[in-house]
Amino acid sequence: MIILGLDPGLGTTGWGLIRAEGNRLSHLANGQLKTDVKESLARRLSHLDSQLAALIADHAPGAAAVEEVFVNTNPQSTLKLGQARGVVLLAVARAGIEPGEYAARLVKKAVVGVGNAEKPQVHAMVARLLPGVKIAGADAADALAVAICHAHHLASARRLG
Amino acid sequence: MIILGLDPGLGTTGWGLIRAEGNRLSHLANGQLKTDVKESLARRLSHLDSQLAALIADHAPGAAAVEEVFVNTNPQSTLKLGQARGVVLLAVARAGIEPGEYAARLVKKAVVGVGNAEKPQVHAMVARLLPGVKIAGADAADALAVAICHAHHLASARRLG
Repeated sequence: MIILGLDPGLGTTGWGLIRAEGNRLSHLANGQLKTDVKESLARRLSHLDSQLAALIADHAPGAAAVEEVFVNTNPQSTLKLGQARGVVLLAVARAGIEPGEYAARLVKKAVVGVGNAEKPQVHAMVARLLPGVKIAGADAADALAVAICHAHHLASARRLG
Repeated sequence: MIILGLDPGLGTTGWGLIRAEGNRLSHLANGQLKTDVKESLARRLSHLDSQLAALIADHAPGAAAVEEVFVNTNPQSTLKLGQARGVVLLAVARAGIEPGEYAARLVKKAVVGVGNAEKPQVHAMVARLLPGVKIAGADAADALAVAICHAHHLASARRLG
């Protein structure tokens, strides 16, 4: 099963694709979708949407998960993130996938073992869990971590089911 | 020119369509798009998106405007609204329209004359400016007010241009 992890943002949305076979995970691809800060909000969202549609069409994931947005103390930042996250969730839903949603804390716990791990720890563990991976940037690393978290979740759901 | 006004929300998105001929405005249609609180966030956004796509295909507006979201003191509410607003802006952009964006204060000023008007005043003035209108609800009234505000803005841009 191919799992797509997404770390939404208006300026940069990280994505990571992994393959899960039983308990074995392997890396497929990762990257960062960018939008131009000089464009209007509607155009940026539209550009994000078309990049997501192309990504999903190219890789045909069977499952997907989206990081829960960190609710900022700055409401304008929360609003921006929310708008990008809405477009990201919609792109996944349009592909017929019900996305998993995980708080950053849960993702860290799944990947590193503790919910308050620092970013470098998370990225080092992602690189260890996915041998040979070249990570495109911090947001792509977070997206791969979300995909790993979803893989664990799906595996334990299967065991319980 | 047909102008679509939108007041985004995850549970209820108000919409209103008016026709602007020179300075004359007339009502075409208005309503409220609902999503089911029992469904997942991704499904709700997807349902909102398909209702918006049908609305835009049916009425082929030449312009559109979206109310700027009231940034709530509750960050979770701001996030929810942001996610719905992202989907609303995307639907407009996908139709090739660059949406106008107006703060509630500006909409009130355009319709009633003062930025701190109460909702009932705004609704009464919408009904007066669009004779014969039957308003579907509070969110539809706000959406019609946004459309009127955009009509005024486009008319003064034409005069200045």
